[in-house]
Amino acid sequence: MSLKIYGLAMSTNTTRAMICLHEKEVDFELVPVNVFASEHKHPPFLNKNPFGLIPVLEDGDLTLFESRAITSYVAEKFKEVGADLIRQNDIKESSLVKMWIEVESQYYEPAVSSIIYEYFVAPFKGQEPNKSVIESNIEKLKSVLDVYEAKLSRTKYLGGDFYSLADLSHISETHYLMQTPCGSMINERPHVKGWWEDISSRPAFQKVVEGMTFGQTQK
Amino acid sequence: MSLKIYGLAMSTNTTRAMICLHEKEVDFELVPVNVFASEHKHPPFLNKNPFGLIPVLEDGDLTLFESRAITSYVAEKFKEVGADLIRQNDIKESSLVKMWIEVESQYYEPAVSSIIYEYFVAPFKGQEPNKSVIESNIEKLKSVLDVYEAKLSRTKYLGGDFYSLADLSHISETHYLMQTPCGSMINERPHVKGWWEDISSRPAFQKVVEGMTFGQTQK
Ligand SMILES: N[C@@H](CCC(=O)N[C@@H](CS)C(=O)NCC(=O)O)C(=O)O
Ligand SMILES: N[C@@H](CCC(=O)N[C@@H](CS)C(=O)NCC(=O)O)C(=O)O
Repeated sequence: MSLKIYGLAMSTNTTRAMICLHEKEVDFELVPVNVFASEHKHPPFLNKNPFGLIPVLEDGDLTLFESRAITSYVAEKFKEVGADLIRQNDIKESSLVKMWIEVESQYYEPAVSSIIYEYFVAPFKGQEPNKSVIESNIEKLKSVLDVYEAKLSRTKYLGGDFYSLADLSHISETHYLMQTPCGSMINERPHVKGWWEDISSRPAFQKVVEGMTFGQTQK
Repeated sequence: MSLKIYGLAMSTNTTRAMICLHEKEVDFELVPVNVFASEHKHPPFLNKNPFGLIPVLEDGDLTLFESRAITSYVAEKFKEVGADLIRQNDIKESSLVKMWIEVESQYYEPAVSSIIYEYFVAPFKGQEPNKSVIESNIEKLKSVLDVYEAKLSRTKYLGGDFYSLADLSHISETHYLMQTPCGSMINERPHVKGWWEDISSRPAFQKVVEGMTFGQTQK
């Protein structure tokens, strides 16, 4: 029985899980959830994730939600295949990977997703992007990216000189960020730019990118 | 050489790390950081954590920030001692532990820390607690706690019938929440209440609770 991901091909959190599955060459089925009809806010979906959010992974009798818990499970279960995304054999490296995943989820993602919201969702709702929200999140993102630039001038990837879940976790939201005027914040920082070109050219991401059409109708 | 934690005994994120160290009976030194004098926003502290936040762990040549990366490192390094906090030998259990840690950090902590801020920090700054911020976070916390109540009616702890990092991660902020009027939200839910009484009575927490004096002067 193949793994199932309940979600949407355009969703950043769903594609975070899917990119990891592709890195590990895992057969899986993407089961679409009609978020626009609030399917995720009612049973039976709420039985899979009581918080009513996508994605959810089903693997036999295991049901997992939270995209970063899903990537960590997939990377460990299929550790023999492809890149070693969690560095499980070296506790220091694996801890640094976890640390940079925390950075992504606590500082990078909130700033980026607020910017994406203003540029992609607000117009869709017939609103002007809120300039002060954009400005304050640009400030937050700048200080995060300055740390990344310094770090990536010392090591090739965030966790060290190896590609890992820490880098992978950034791909989906950065893809959309690059389609806003704030994409220049990546391009202005040479090490961040090089890192982004590297991680976004991986075949696993190329397999999901064409489904990432969020915001395309309103552009 | 013993481990060092740079932080403050009253800080929720510092005590999250300390509780885990006590569970594992690890000798460590708490090195106080003068947050009130912004010591954490300048070198040499910024060399330890470029984001300028406490806590930071130093173990030999490893420097780790982000409290949840620290607890995960400590729980793994000292896995032979005390309770098995990460269930490393069972990939499904360990994934559920990680999933509930994500829930704590993404949904529980933001709501609780906003409430704590209004009741503890605002008065300290000579401001009235902002009622609308409190109300909106009470709403968020309610829906999280309703999920916990349902889950804890089925298993003794969040990850399953075993105490883990998922539960431990909640202790510090819940301790302060209980000192606000919103503590009733825990007590009104019988399974959440029983769980809180259980996890807050563990000796590892008792070792840090007397240092958790945040807000005491302004009460
Ligand atoms: N922390 C969760 C966030 C999940 C999330 O916010 N998913 C979005 C889609 S990218 C969603 O379900 N949105 C629908 C909604 O908020 O109702 C994760 O990492 O999986
Ligand atoms: N995600 C971080 C958060 C760290 C954090 O916010 N620490 C607080 C103390 S509890 C801090 O350093 N505050 C000082 C400041 O924000 O300047 C973690 O889990 O360690």
